[in-house]
Amino acid sequence: MRRILITGAAGGLGRVLRTRLRAEGLLLRLSDVAEIGEPVPGEEIVRCDLADAKAVDRLVDGCDAIIHLGGISLEDRFSRILDANILGLFNLYEAARAHGHPRIFFASSNHTIGFYRQDERLDAGMPMRPDGLYGVSKCFGEALARMYFDKFGQETAIVRIGSCFERPRNHRMLSSWLSYDDLTSLVTCVLRAPLLGCPVIWGVSDNDRSWWDNSAIAYLGWRPKDNAEAFRDEIERMEERPAPDTPLAIWQGGPFTQDPIVPEA
Amino acid sequence: MRRILITGAAGGLGRVLRTRLRAEGLLLRLSDVAEIGEPVPGEEIVRCDLADAKAVDRLVDGCDAIIHLGGISLEDRFSRILDANILGLFNLYEAARAHGHPRIFFASSNHTIGFYRQDERLDAGMPMRPDGLYGVSKCFGEALARMYFDKFGQETAIVRIGSCFERPRNHRMLSSWLSYDDLTSLVTCVLRAPLLGCPVIWGVSDNDRSWWDNSAIAYLGWRPKDNAEAFRDEIERMEERPAPDTPLAIWQGGPFTQDPIVPEA
Amino acid sequence: MRRILITGAAGGLGRVLRTRLRAEGLLLRLSDVAEIGEPVPGEEIVRCDLADAKAVDRLVDGCDAIIHLGGISLEDRFSRILDANILGLFNLYEAARAHGHPRIFFASSNHTIGFYRQDERLDAGMPMRPDGLYGVSKCFGEALARMYFDKFGQETAIVRIGSCFERPRNHRMLSSWLSYDDLTSLVTCVLRAPLLGCPVIWGVSDNDRSWWDNSAIAYLGWRPKDNAEAFRDEIERMEERPAPDTPLAIWQGGPFTQDPIVPEA
Amino acid sequence: MRRILITGAAGGLGRVLRTRLRAEGLLLRLSDVAEIGEPVPGEEIVRCDLADAKAVDRLVDGCDAIIHLGGISLEDRFSRILDANILGLFNLYEAARAHGHPRIFFASSNHTIGFYRQDERLDAGMPMRPDGLYGVSKCFGEALARMYFDKFGQETAIVRIGSCFERPRNHRMLSSWLSYDDLTSLVTCVLRAPLLGCPVIWGVSDNDRSWWDNSAIAYLGWRPKDNAEAFRDEIERMEERPAPDTPLAIWQGGPFTQDPIVPEA
Amino acid sequence: MRRILITGAAGGLGRVLRTRLRAEGLLLRLSDVAEIGEPVPGEEIVRCDLADAKAVDRLVDGCDAIIHLGGISLEDRFSRILDANILGLFNLYEAARAHGHPRIFFASSNHTIGFYRQDERLDAGMPMRPDGLYGVSKCFGEALARMYFDKFGQETAIVRIGSCFERPRNHRMLSSWLSYDDLTSLVTCVLRAPLLGCPVIWGVSDNDRSWWDNSAIAYLGWRPKDNAEAFRDEIERMEERPAPDTPLAIWQGGPFTQDPIVPEA
Amino acid sequence: MRRILITGAAGGLGRVLRTRLRAEGLLLRLSDVAEIGEPVPGEEIVRCDLADAKAVDRLVDGCDAIIHLGGISLEDRFSRILDANILGLFNLYEAARAHGHPRIFFASSNHTIGFYRQDERLDAGMPMRPDGLYGVSKCFGEALARMYFDKFGQETAIVRIGSCFERPRNHRMLSSWLSYDDLTSLVTCVLRAPLLGCPVIWGVSDNDRSWWDNSAIAYLGWRPKDNAEAFRDEIERMEERPAPDTPLAIWQGGPFTQDPIVPEA
Repeated sequence: MRRILITGAAGGLGRVLRTRLRAEGLLLRLSDVAEIGEPVPGEEIVRCDLADAKAVDRLVDGCDAIIHLGGISLEDRFSRILDANILGLFNLYEAARAHGHPRIFFASSNHTIGFYRQDERLDAGMPMRPDGLYGVSKCFGEALARMYFDKFGQETAIVRIGSCFERPRNHRMLSSWLSYDDLTSLVTCVLRAPLLGCPVIWGVSDNDRSWWDNSAIAYLGWRPKDNAEAFRDEIERMEERPAPDTPLAIWQGGPFTQDPIVPEA
Repeated sequence: MRRILITGAAGGLGRVLRTRLRAEGLLLRLSDVAEIGEPVPGEEIVRCDLADAKAVDRLVDGCDAIIHLGGISLEDRFSRILDANILGLFNLYEAARAHGHPRIFFASSNHTIGFYRQDERLDAGMPMRPDGLYGVSKCFGEALARMYFDKFGQETAIVRIGSCFERPRNHRMLSSWLSYDDLTSLVTCVLRAPLLGCPVIWGVSDNDRSWWDNSAIAYLGWRPKDNAEAFRDEIERMEERPAPDTPLAIWQGGPFTQDPIVPEA
Repeated sequence: MRRILITGAAGGLGRVLRTRLRAEGLLLRLSDVAEIGEPVPGEEIVRCDLADAKAVDRLVDGCDAIIHLGGISLEDRFSRILDANILGLFNLYEAARAHGHPRIFFASSNHTIGFYRQDERLDAGMPMRPDGLYGVSKCFGEALARMYFDKFGQETAIVRIGSCFERPRNHRMLSSWLSYDDLTSLVTCVLRAPLLGCPVIWGVSDNDRSWWDNSAIAYLGWRPKDNAEAFRDEIERMEERPAPDTPLAIWQGGPFTQDPIVPEA
Repeated sequence: MRRILITGAAGGLGRVLRTRLRAEGLLLRLSDVAEIGEPVPGEEIVRCDLADAKAVDRLVDGCDAIIHLGGISLEDRFSRILDANILGLFNLYEAARAHGHPRIFFASSNHTIGFYRQDERLDAGMPMRPDGLYGVSKCFGEALARMYFDKFGQETAIVRIGSCFERPRNHRMLSSWLSYDDLTSLVTCVLRAPLLGCPVIWGVSDNDRSWWDNSAIAYLGWRPKDNAEAFRDEIERMEERPAPDTPLAIWQGGPFTQDPIVPEA
Repeated sequence: MRRILITGAAGGLGRVLRTRLRAEGLLLRLSDVAEIGEPVPGEEIVRCDLADAKAVDRLVDGCDAIIHLGGISLEDRFSRILDANILGLFNLYEAARAHGHPRIFFASSNHTIGFYRQDERLDAGMPMRPDGLYGVSKCFGEALARMYFDKFGQETAIVRIGSCFERPRNHRMLSSWLSYDDLTSLVTCVLRAPLLGCPVIWGVSDNDRSWWDNSAIAYLGWRPKDNAEAFRDEIERMEERPAPDTPLAIWQGGPFTQDPIVPEA
Repeated sequence: MRRILITGAAGGLGRVLRTRLRAEGLLLRLSDVAEIGEPVPGEEIVRCDLADAKAVDRLVDGCDAIIHLGGISLEDRFSRILDANILGLFNLYEAARAHGHPRIFFASSNHTIGFYRQDERLDAGMPMRPDGLYGVSKCFGEALARMYFDKFGQETAIVRIGSCFERPRNHRMLSSWLSYDDLTSLVTCVLRAPLLGCPVIWGVSDNDRSWWDNSAIAYLGWRPKDNAEAFRDEIERMEERPAPDTPLAIWQGGPFTQDPIVPEA
């Protein structure tokens, strides 16, 4: 039986994958800095602060793969992003290097490219345009992952998660939504691929209005099944379409592009 | 209720959209230089020559969007193309500028690129290769639309209509056919998009043999449903396949590439 | 009735097409250097060594199209590849030139590009990277076909066959498999297209994990229907996934990349 | 001796070429709607309104090449642009078609792409972004020229003139300047090239700060010699550098991007 | 008189620019965490640790432009890189935001792309391939700079310094060398450009063997004058050419690609 | 002292390099199927038919590099091209494999791409378009060289020689000329480069009218010095400019595109 580490297991995506991967018979090591709850059979629970290098080293030891969802996922004080997303990621890759290079699924973000317009089509090789400090920290992460691949052969799936929720919640998510089923199939696909390499993957469902072109990773055989368009009527009832000259309609990063720098306390 | 202006309403596409858009509950202002018939409830009829700037100004006043199908759509004397497609289009954009920039659906044409070979795949950014004076007038139109976007923020969908008929009529249309349903869904999609910008869109159904790549406008979420291939047997019974060394088989513009310059009377 | 020449008719693909094309009412001229068996109605059998120019000339005389599957299809002594795939192909094109340029379906191979990585996506215009002498001979063939097109107007479908078997046999074929049905529909499509030109076509089914992008030949209207993914469970039971740092997982050409040069006897 | 027609001969560029080409021993037919002055030996003077088709036909008759500088070269009332740049150009191409397709040097303009940013590098194949009605009329002209090439074999050099003056006059011209010597060598080069085709050429000197990439027309062998940088100190003394957030600093079209639509009288 | 801040003023490049820029009559504020020496007229000396946000804020106050050379420029413990290159850079951009967005020259590095092969030609838009933690920290910096541009309009020249020394010191520097004169002219050019934007610039002289294509920033008008080739004989006397299958010959990053992760003390 | 093998040493390029490389103090092994003459000090003469594998093996033994100019360089009977350019090249690469992979300079040809138009600009990665059997044999050679590089690490400079003569001889050579000096500096450059890899290099001088873009091999540091333009007047006196609608003006391959297939005797 293979042991899979999930960091950020107490967060939204972590809770989704906890249930679904266990159902596939995988042994899960669940970790978070926050409270996760009690383990059920097939689970191990490890409380861990990613900024603590030694703790991260113990956390990774014995794992066959890592699904790294941990860290800050919104604009925040830079000191907090620095600890969790920058130092924390470095600690994780060092631990992986020390323990046989388990394959890593790294939850990067569409906020690495949030300052492209919504009428642009992106492939994964275009220059990054982060929309805030959070996005910048994910650019750091993508660069770190690539370096560990080129230098040490560490395989990583760099997954630029769109908007992963049970259903799309607003007009922007008609383009950016990633369904839970498609997230799960992507994780499975990454874990099973004979050759992973270090690709950048758009974590997005098969939405009619997607901005992102995944054809470069066809070799992985991931074919998302869901389509946010099924929720369009629901969303049009919920909120007004944003006007074409407003940031919500213009930028792929949506509201993040308007977030200020968060001052240190 | 939104009021939509349809120019060229007496023509083939105009009659199709007149019926279908009214069915969606839109208020239609129908215009043509030719006789259109009597309005039914939900319709206004305005006879108008596009070369008459003042008349066009009145025509546009009060409209929330414009579906511009008017003008000449075949090779013709240049003087006629000049009035209808060049001066007429300028008048339309000036009227739109005077009246709050209603969004414009501009029926451009595949004859802007008719001198590409049928074994070439085109995206919308490739240099234009018009196949006659009609095609050149549409190149003018695309340039004008882009200028009003860059200078004044006027949004336009530049739609290079393929061959829009009830069904494909010859071998070439197995590639270029646009069904009435797909035309209608494209119009709807353009009217509803939060951000339109000023994209060039291939107006073509989901034909197996399409020459044109619409991936750049995926953000609009338009997914045509029809496929000319369903009519292949019918067409093969109707006409011989053109020989590979004949203009009908070589050029995307088909017979237009062979049309002479039409002399002034 | 049209007469179609199939070379290499005694081989795997030849036997498949023999049955299927006859079923479409085509008159077949079947040829091989090996024993083919007895003709049934609608068939002619011609024993022929491709290295014999005069015999090839007679073979081609009277044919309306050629499906060229003949020659060596594995690493072999260079002298044998030279005779069958290089001299033999020249003889075939000379015969076609002498007899009215019947359209040619040329079975090239993925081994023209076997030294690209499996995490790369290829279009047909990328520089060749053959993985052995067999692959090099197919590069020769592609160049020869192109020259006869540019110089003499000879149309050829250059088909880089992936792995054409009844079902995929190993992990690599989850990407490279071409089903018999899809091979057949491709042949039919090539024979019927009004304009063929001289395209390079990836001969691969609609596999989830395909490495190859056929969008450039959309104009031919070929839409493969099969998907190797349907056989994934079967294959995963049959063989271990290759490790990511082994040639079988790294190179598109798979085991061919490891074949040594075969010494002359 | 070869006879060269220069339209717009009374304008700035016309006067420059009049002197310089005569010096090369060419016979010049000089034409303008305005007064040109008296002919000297080696010159013919023909007063002509380009909107008059018959007059244009006579004008072109007997010429071996045409340097078309005529028409409006600033924002103006659309009616005037229509007559001079659209109808006038059509008349010119029709006359060329009637008289053996003399090679045409067509003075297009950088205002066909004025809405690209000054920190962008352009090749000649990028989509047009005109900055006003004048620019749009040149887009029309480029499309017309291309159509006459594809349909009738008419060769044209489509030259997007930058800023052609004796010396650069402001900061923008440090990028866009075309010296008189370089203009002259370009004309000569176009007239003498064995194969011209229908290229789009950036009419710009070898300026350090050029925005435009002419590598696609290297086959013509034109190597401009002048460099606006030699005038930088002079310009910095003459005018303030424009601030980076002003249209003069942002757009390649410079002040044209700010011109309003000129109302009809 | 304009005041220019130079961080890292005690380092190699800092000392070069200190002398040369003062000679151009600029007022210099020189800063470093290390000892810099005494100011001469036209200089201010400010000792400053970049990790100290308040000190950085005071440092930037009153400056018209920033030449940011400070931080770690070799592989080092991650904790040191984190403080100097990541937190330090954030502090600098925050200070610039607080003080009117003085233009920034940011010394990034070729080690952001050190894992490209030496037989590859790079433009500035290609995905990053850092060769160590130092390189990764510069990827962070480039992303941060771009975000401050897109979000706040902060202009930065992102300069990927090659190898900046008095003369090239080894075979690799025949490609990567940046002379002091060319560094100086680049700085001047960045300070004076009307529009800078946020370009990525290869900081490399006009070396015959350069790997890097600066054509995208032609608009800045920077034309380096020096050429490492002038030192080839000297270098060939100094050291053996590296063998083609060794990291020094293969990777653009040269020896950095072989550096291990530096352990924390 | 290094020993360099030159095949085809009795031919035009062979004689040029014989003199010039000896002058650089290299020990030369000169080979041809034809008479070469007597060796001088620093030379060895070996008569050799490339189709004789054993003889080629002995020829290569002891050489540190190979300059392969041997074989047929014009349209000829295919049997002769097969022996010299196809079998002969295979023999050469096998011999190199047996003897430690001496670096190879392979004289390929512009006739691998002769069917591109003269108004097209080519980089080395574009699909091949040979203009005859000779060109096809060079396509074979390029594929073979690449395979030996990918499979065995054999470095080759694939040099597409333009027109290498003492001076350009006709209008086409104003684009395609390679001077003897530039040939020599290219050979030297290839022999001395730390990393060669397996690049495709355009063997052409710095001609104003060049069709070919060598920027991809800037890393080699080869800067040709000569320019065919210096001979333009001379050529214009010698021959008429070809008309724009003739093969000599249209195709890069020039007269080769018109050569028929040479019949076997």
